[in-house]
This record gives sequence, C-alpha cells and structure tokens, in this order.
Amino acid sequence: MTTQDPKALLETFANPHPNREYEIEINCPEFTSVCPVTGQPDYGTVTITYSPDQKCVELKSLKFYIQSYRNKGIFYEKLTNDILNDLSAVIEPKWMLVTGDFNARGGITTRVTAEYIAEGMEEE
Amino acid sequence: MTTQDPKALLETFANPHPNREYEIEINCPEFTSVCPVTGQPDYGTVTITYSPDQKCVELKSLKFYIQSYRNKGIFYEKLTNDILNDLSAVIEPKWMLVTGDFNARGGITTRVTAEYIAEGMEEE
Amino acid sequence: MTTQDPKALLETFANPHPNREYEIEINCPEFTSVCPVTGQPDYGTVTITYSPDQKCVELKSLKFYIQSYRNKGIFYEKLTNDILNDLSAVIEPKWMLVTGDFNARGGITTRVTAEYIAEGMEEE
Amino acid sequence: MTTQDPKALLETFANPHPNREYEIEINCPEFTSVCPVTGQPDYGTVTITYSPDQKCVELKSLKFYIQSYRNKGIFYEKLTNDILNDLSAVIEPKWMLVTGDFNARGGITTRVTAEYIAEGMEEE
Amino acid sequence: MTTQDPKALLETFANPHPNREYEIEINCPEFTSVCPVTGQPDYGTVTITYSPDQKCVELKSLKFYIQSYRNKGIFYEKLTNDILNDLSAVIEPKWMLVTGDFNARGGITTRVTAEYIAEGMEEE
Amino acid sequence: MTTQDPKALLETFANPHPNREYEIEINCPEFTSVCPVTGQPDYGTVTITYSPDQKCVELKSLKFYIQSYRNKGIFYEKLTNDILNDLSAVIEPKWMLVTGDFNARGGITTRVTAEYIAEGMEEE
Amino acid sequence: MTTQDPKALLETFANPHPNREYEIEINCPEFTSVCPVTGQPDYGTVTITYSPDQKCVELKSLKFYIQSYRNKGIFYEKLTNDILNDLSAVIEPKWMLVTGDFNARGGITTRVTAEYIAEGMEEE
Amino acid sequence: MTTQDPKALLETFANPHPNREYEIEINCPEFTSVCPVTGQPDYGTVTITYSPDQKCVELKSLKFYIQSYRNKGIFYEKLTNDILNDLSAVIEPKWMLVTGDFNARGGITTRVTAEYIAEGMEEE
Amino acid sequence: MTTQDPKALLETFANPHPNREYEIEINCPEFTSVCPVTGQPDYGTVTITYSPDQKCVELKSLKFYIQSYRNKGIFYEKLTNDILNDLSAVIEPKWMLVTGDFNARGGITTRVTAEYIAEGMEEE
Amino acid sequence: MTTQDPKALLETFANPHPNREYEIEINCPEFTSVCPVTGQPDYGTVTITYSPDQKCVELKSLKFYIQSYRNKGIFYEKLTNDILNDLSAVIEPKWMLVTGDFNARGGITTRVTAEYIAEGMEEE
Repeated sequence: MTTQDPKALLETFANPHPNREYEIEINCPEFTSVCPVTGQPDYGTVTITYSPDQKCVELKSLKFYIQSYRNKGIFYEKLTNDILNDLSAVIEPKWMLVTGDFNARGGITTRVTAEYIAEGMEEE
Repeated sequence: MTTQDPKALLETFANPHPNREYEIEINCPEFTSVCPVTGQPDYGTVTITYSPDQKCVELKSLKFYIQSYRNKGIFYEKLTNDILNDLSAVIEPKWMLVTGDFNARGGITTRVTAEYIAEGMEEE
Repeated sequence: MTTQDPKALLETFANPHPNREYEIEINCPEFTSVCPVTGQPDYGTVTITYSPDQKCVELKSLKFYIQSYRNKGIFYEKLTNDILNDLSAVIEPKWMLVTGDFNARGGITTRVTAEYIAEGMEEE
Repeated sequence: MTTQDPKALLETFANPHPNREYEIEINCPEFTSVCPVTGQPDYGTVTITYSPDQKCVELKSLKFYIQSYRNKGIFYEKLTNDILNDLSAVIEPKWMLVTGDFNARGGITTRVTAEYIAEGMEEE
Repeated sequence: MTTQDPKALLETFANPHPNREYEIEINCPEFTSVCPVTGQPDYGTVTITYSPDQKCVELKSLKFYIQSYRNKGIFYEKLTNDILNDLSAVIEPKWMLVTGDFNARGGITTRVTAEYIAEGMEEE
Repeated sequence: MTTQDPKALLETFANPHPNREYEIEINCPEFTSVCPVTGQPDYGTVTITYSPDQKCVELKSLKFYIQSYRNKGIFYEKLTNDILNDLSAVIEPKWMLVTGDFNARGGITTRVTAEYIAEGMEEE
Repeated sequence: MTTQDPKALLETFANPHPNREYEIEINCPEFTSVCPVTGQPDYGTVTITYSPDQKCVELKSLKFYIQSYRNKGIFYEKLTNDILNDLSAVIEPKWMLVTGDFNARGGITTRVTAEYIAEGMEEE
Repeated sequence: MTTQDPKALLETFANPHPNREYEIEINCPEFTSVCPVTGQPDYGTVTITYSPDQKCVELKSLKFYIQSYRNKGIFYEKLTNDILNDLSAVIEPKWMLVTGDFNARGGITTRVTAEYIAEGMEEE
Repeated sequence: MTTQDPKALLETFANPHPNREYEIEINCPEFTSVCPVTGQPDYGTVTITYSPDQKCVELKSLKFYIQSYRNKGIFYEKLTNDILNDLSAVIEPKWMLVTGDFNARGGITTRVTAEYIAEGMEEE
Repeated sequence: MTTQDPKALLETFANPHPNREYEIEINCPEFTSVCPVTGQPDYGTVTITYSPDQKCVELKSLKFYIQSYRNKGIFYEKLTNDILNDLSAVIEPKWMLVTGDFNARGGITTRVTAEYIAEGMEEE
C-alpha cells in the first residue's frame, strides 16, 4: 500500500447541491502513522473541512486513504500538508482546511493546520 | 410519509416582534435517517438558526417534519441542504443556517453546514 | 400579578461610573413560564447583557420581575422580546442583549436572542 | 422484521477463554423505539454487561437485534426486560445486566435496570 | 390543584415483568415549589428510584403530580418525604428512594434523601 | 462575633418526619477563615451531611454560623472538627459527617473529613 | 485598612520587555466583599488583563490589594470599576480590562466588565 | 514480530518494596489491532492493574509488547485475556486486572475485563 | 538537599482532636523527579491520605519535603513507597495511603498506590 | 546548563512545504522554573504557535530547551518573552505566539502572551 499512490484510494460523488456554498467537516480520531526517526507509532486526530465545488469525498474511501498512513514513516508537518494536497487534488474543493492533532511525545503535543484555497476564491 | 412532500408538515405562526432583527436557534439531537448505500440507520443532531421575517416555525410541526426522515435513505450532504431548502421556503426568514452533526461511522464523524440568505439581506 | 404591568416591578440605581462604557451580564437560570397552548410549565435560563448609561437595574427587583412570568402563558419568541422591551424602557441602556435558553420539549431545545441599541449608538 | 422473533437475529461465537470468569460490557447509544401510547419515537442508550459461559454475542448481529426495536411500539420497562430475556436465552451467560437510559420526555428522564443470574451462580 | 390530595393525580400500569426484581430511576430536573417562610420560589431536581412489585408509575401522571408542588409553600425536608410517602402508597414498590437536590440559597445548596422499604423486604 | 460562642447562632426546627431515617446534605462553597500563622485568608467548601433525629438545622442560621469563621484564625484540621462538634451538639443528629475542602496553598490542596455517631447508633 | 487608600498597597516592577506589545492576564478566584445593603458577604472571581507599558504589577502586592475589599461594603458595578481605576492609575498600562464574576444571589449571577485604554492607544 | 512469542518482549525489574502489598495501574490509550473478520483496524485503551510480588514490568518493554498487536488480527475478548495471560506469566503478580475499552464500531462500544489471582491469594 | 535525609524536612503539630478518628487528604499536583534511566524529568500528582493519631503534618514543611525529589533520579514504584515510609515514620498515623499519578511517557500513564496501617489498627 | 545560551539547544529541520502558509501549535504542559524572589519552583504550560518560513523546530530539541528553565530563577513576564525571542531568532518564522499559563500562587493564576511578527508580514 505504501508504494502505490494513496490518492488512488479516494473516491468522490457528485455534490448534490452544487449551486450553494456550504461546508463539510470530517473528523478522523483514529489516525496513526510511524515516526520516521524512531520507528515508533504516532497517534492523532485528523480533521478535514472543505466547501465542495462539483465533488464530495466518499467517506468509506476516505477511511481507506487515512489507513494508508498506518505503517508509513512521516513527520507531522509533512503528512498534514500531504493529506491536504491529495484531497484537494482529487475533490477540487472551493477551499479546504486540514488539521492534525498529535498525542503527547516527551510531554509535548503538536497541532499542524494547513489550508488550500482554489484559484479565484477569496478567503472570507 | 416518504412519498408525500414533507414540507407540508411544517406550520408557522406570525412573528410576534416583526420589526426587530432577532435570532432563533433550534436544536434537534434526536435526528435519524437511513444510509442510502447500506440501509443502516444514521443518527445525528440537526441545528437550525434563523432570523424570522414575518413567520416563525411552530416547534411541534418541526418535530414531525424532522421525524419524516426516520426511514428515508439519504446522504448527509443532501439532507442538510434539503432541510435548509424546505424550512427557508416555508418560513421565508431573513437568513437561516442548518448544521447536521452525524455520529461516527468507521471511526469517522461528519458535520455539514449550509446557509440561506434572503435576497436583499447582506450577511453581517 | 399578571394583570399589572410587570415593568413596574423594576427598580434602578444611578450608574456609579456613568462616564465609562462598560458591560453588565446578568444570568437568571431559574426562569419559568407556562406554554400558552398546552398550559404546561416551561423552564429556561434568561441572560441579560447591557451597557448602562445613567441607570443600572437593581438585582432584587429584577428577580421579582423575572418571577412575574411564573404563571403567565407566553411563547418563547414573545417573552424574550418582551423582557428586552421592558428592561430597555426602564434602564435606558446604551445597548442590551437578551437571550432565552429553553429546556427540551419533544426532544427539541430552543434559544431566542434579541438586541436593543439606543439611537445614536453604533454596534461595535 | 417486527412479526419475526428478533431473537433469531442474534448470533454467537465460542468464548475464547471459557475457563476464566470475565466481563464484557457493550454500549449501544443509538437505541430507538416508538412510544406505544403516542406513536412518537423514543431514544436512549442500552448497555449490556455479562460474564460469558460457553458463548459470546457477535457484535454485528447484536446491532441488527437492537435495530429490530426501531419501529416497535413498546414501554421502557418492557423493552429493557425483553432485551435481557432474549440475550440471556441465546448467550446463556453466567450473569447479565441490561440498563436502558431514555431521553427526556416532558422534562423527565428514565433509567431501567434489570439483571439475570444463571441458576447455581451467586451474585458477588 | 392545591386543595385536592395530589396523590390522586398519580396513575399506574401493571408491571410487565413482575417476577423479576429490577430497578426504575426517574429524574425530574424541573421541580419547583415555594419557600413557606419568604414566599420565594425554590428550584431543584427530584430523583425517584424504585423496584416495582405489581405496579409501575405512569410518567405523564407523575409529571402532573410533580407540577402540583409549583405553587405550594413547603420545606425541602417535608416535600422530599411527602413525595416518598405519596409514591410508595400508590405504587406499593418493593423499595423506593427519593432525592431532592435544591438550588443555592444564600450560597448554600441542600440535598435531602429518604428511603422506603416494604415490610418483609431487606435492603441489600 | 468572635468572642461569643458561635454555636448560639444556630437555630433548629422540628424534624417533619421523625420516624424515618433519612439524610440531609448541605453544601457551603463560600467558606472563608484566616490562617493562624500567616494571617492570610483561607477559602474552601464545607459540606455537612446528617441524619436528623428530632431536629433539623435552619439554613439561614447555618449561613450566619459559617460566616462567624470569616475573620477567625484557625487551622483546617481544627475548624472541621469544631464545626462537627458545634452542629452535633445543637442538632443532636443520629450521625453527622463534616468535610472541608480547602483551596491550593503553595500548590497543595487539603481535605479534612470528620464524623460523629450518636451513642447507640451503629454506622451502616 | 478601609480608611486608607488601598491603591497604596500596589507595587510595580519594571516591564522586562518594554519594546513589545504583549498581554498579562491575572485571575483572582478568591475575591470577597460585603453587600452594602444587607451586610452579607459577596464572593466572586476578578480577572485583570492588561498590556504593560513601563510597569508590571507585582503579584503579592496585588493579592493584598484584592484582600482590602474583604470587609468593604460595595456594589459589584462600583468595585469592578474602582479596581480598574486603581490599577490603571498605578500601572499606567497601554490598556486594561477588569471582569468581576459574582456568585449567585437569589438564583441570579452577575458579571461586570470594564475597560481602560490609554490616551493615544487605539483598541485593536 | 507476529510469528515470535510477544511475551519475549516483556522485561521486568525487582520490586523495590517486596514486603508491602501495593498496586500499580498502567494505562495504554494507544492500543490498536486488526479485526480478524474485516481486516479493518481496531482502536482502544488497555489498562493493566496489578499488585507486584517479586517483579515489576518495565514500562518501555511493555510499550513494545502492546505494539506487537498493531498488525495482528484478533477479537477483543481474546486479546484482553491473552494480555492478562502473558503479563501474569512474566510478572507473576499477586493479582492482575486487564481492561480493554474499544472504540465504537457500528455505533457500539465494547469493554472487556479479565482478572488473574495467584494461587493462595484471596481477592479482597 | 539530596544527600541529607529528606525526612528531616518534615514538621508536625499536635492533632487538635486526638480522640476522634478522622481523615486528612493532601493533594500535591506539582510533583516532579528525574527518571533514573534517561535522566529526563518526570511529572505527576502525589496524594496523601491519613488518619492522624497524635500528630498532623505541617503543610509548608510537606511542600519542602515534596520538593526534595525535584532533582532526584528515582523510579515511580520506589518513590511512592519511600514517601509512604517517610511520612508514616514521622507522623505515626493510624493509617496512611499514598498515590502517585504520573504523566504519559511513550503514550503510557502510571499510577502507584501504597498503604500503611499501624499495628493494632484494622482497615475498615 | 544555566550559564550556556539555551538557544544553542534548539535544532531545526527544513520546512517540508515552504510554499504554503500554515500553522504549527506546540503545547508543553510540563514547564517548570524557579521564582527569583522566593526560590520556590513555579509550574505552568507553555504554548508556542507559529507559521514556518524555511525552518521548523525539532521537537526533541525543543523539549531540552524547555527543560533548561527547570532550575533558572526568572519572572513569568520575562521568561515568556525570552522563549519568544529565542525561538523566533532560531526558527525565523513568519509569525509566532508564545503563551505561558502559570499555576496558582497565593490563590492567583497568571497568563502571559507575547507575539512576534517578521518584518514585512502583516498580522491577519
């Protein structure tokens, strides 16, 4: 699963109300990956918020996409941005925000937040 | 109940203070519908916030309207927007916001938020 | 108590710092009235926030005013606006916000929020 | 689904540690049935705790069993005891406790708790 | 309503599982009465827990019974015991526990708890 | 107020249900006294639980009794036991428990709990 | 202590980073004063937020200043503004916000908020 | 890691107070394994409580042992009992309790609790 | 401070109510020591509960005693028992319970609980 | 450790997504330092939020940097600003916010918040 492009796991369906600007927030509290330095598992919650244009992400396929990180060695900063890149490439939303909240390591917790805005869309 | 237009279930009463811009928030934590793919029940909380113009929604009729989704197969994104469409058509508010917060499926929770603004009203 | 104007119950005292714009928030979690349709008691929390001009409301008199709704049949939307009208007429504040949060009926909770702004005052 | 015996929906698997007395607690926060008097939906959480003897309940089949109450008209006191009767008949546990916590109706919440103890088992 | 015996408001239905010892807990967070000294309203939560013998209390009638205290002047200690006396006389349970949790007055909150055990029943 | 015996502030009324063993819990979150070493104010919550025999404590008089500690220099261990001694001497309960929960000093919080049991009463 | 100007209790130290606009929030949950009408003690939390210019308030001296209200008869509205006046006069901050949150009296809680902005400073 | 006996990962150190009966509780909120039926990941919290005899478990080795379940297909009931068996075999405690709290699947959460008591030890 | 016996830091005062069995609970949420293996700081909360006989521990001296662990390399299991040994040797209580709750390391939290009972005292 | 420049402890790695404006929030709840007046330990939580430009802070090195304050005598106001100065000098972020929340001393808690904005960056 790690050598394949995980983006291929994502499926979409047609936005049922394409004429309205609205917002979808998806919360994945069962995220896990592996620390690229120590090889130890990392745990966290990934939250995806977006405004759909023509496509919505299908939730079961999103679950499989999130699971593709389970045995991947990757830093918090990179994976949060990679998820944003993959999802915005496939869904082509008006805008999207991805937040990763990671469990304490050495008594320290970390949250990374990254945003995508489609060309021609102004952030409110 | 599913073949009839559920909008017909909604009743209104005259706004008792039509000259003031004010806000009504209604919280329905007992929403349930059915997943159109798996046929399994979905559960969530639907929150409706609006500024009345000439009409307010009568709460008992709203309860029956919400119950009309109980055995209906429908996606989260569609039902949240449908509720917004039905309520704004019947109440004709200055503006209305509908939020659907749905319980975890496959470890993933979802929230959909959609807004209606009457023509000639600018969002603050 | 119901035939008398409940506004007469409200007493004020002189604002001790009339030259400063400041804010007073009063929380009344023991509000109760009666549903005008079913005759059943309703319960909720009424919150009053205002910026005093020359007068502040005396809290004991406010308690008696709030109690005047105990056996009155009245809708949520009307009582929230009536409280705002009565209090702003007596206190003549720079601005005032009244919120009524009402307990679940038929699994549905309701919050009504109304605001008064004195002439010549711009909302920040 | 309502004319069939819902007990037939329940499936079991062999207890993997039959020589040890241990405890399984299953929490179903998405329970819904119908009030037999008003026809209105009821909502609640059903919790099942048991000590397995030779059999454990399979969770997916339990989900379907719980869903069989979705459109059934039944009182809280009866359904809590019926669930206990059905589950203890199929699983034949050493003991079992079923609790139903039901949402507010008319400002009143209700919890019903019933227990089964197999013959020859003394409650600790 | 205050001159009549409020016990007459209580209705019962036949216990659907009379052969099993089980427990029913009913929570009434919208209790209100009047302080017999000051005439001011008191507020609190009344919780009733019992093991039914032949009868269960019908919840709508219990709501009306609890409402009969709305304009009655009565001390916390007396009303908690009176509710226990009335309910145990009508329901004839195996045992019953009534708890009244009353809101702060003068910065002090009070809880009164009283228990009834039918003759021949030993408390576990 | 400090030179007088504060016990004289306590008033009682006749237990309205003297034939039943029941329990009264009174929570006083606005307790304050003075540290006898540093002269600095101490703050805490005093909780009194008792089973009345012939007398109940009147709550307004209890408030004044609790206030008599406001400017008294006294250790936590002594004041908790003194309150127990004073209240049990005046009320003559079947049993009484007094708990004092005191705010952090030097990053350390303290709770003191003392119990009185009338002669001839066995603790359950 | 009540006849002296309590402002004299406040001590300051030099702002260690005077070239940066930053914010200090101080929370005093052990505030107590006396109601000027009833003579009964009042309790609350006073929160002070400010942006220092050349001076910061020394915390131990602030504690003594707050304690100077312990036996003073004063209304909520006046004391919140007086604390703001005293502190801003001594510290000369860029801006300061004082909030007083007071415990329930007659079932009603109150919060008073007042702000000072130095001449030449614009509120963000 | 899955073909090897995971028990071999566990290391111990000598109990520093072997003459006193005391208790150690270890909470592992980052447990994950795989559902043997669906191949989907499961998530939960494993809690281990024990009274040491001659040996205590070393925490870093316990972390590696818990991680050995990461890609193992196993039922909740079996894994909770297996962890109890492995740990009690290696540590030889006076007694041990293992609890597994697993995340919602199909809207249902599950907790499994199993206990080991050394021969000659009576449970209190 | 580390080479001296930290027990010497503890001071006591005479129990003001030596004829009554009562309980004192002291909560120290600012405990810190050093891991003897990694040299990294550990953090936690130490709770001490005891029934005094002739002596009570003076809280300021207890604070200094707790601080003596700040730079000491010591395992959780040993330090919890050492605190129990030191405090029970100095205070000579009827009984004492010490609990150490330690922050997550490697995603794992630990609680150690140890108890002392004076000779001739039976635990209730 | 105190005579060396603690900034030298901080290590960075290259921002993996330098072309996107995004945000990293790091929470350190195990901060401790020493009061420069009393020599007593202080405790608190330090939160660092920043938008990386070319560099991200490596978390293990940040842990060592935070630990360098463990035995340093320093005021809250100075240490919060010093952390901001050190981190912004090493990471050269687009902007950075540092908040220190410190535990109660004398019943008073304190929070200090300071912000850095790189030249040419406008705060949103």
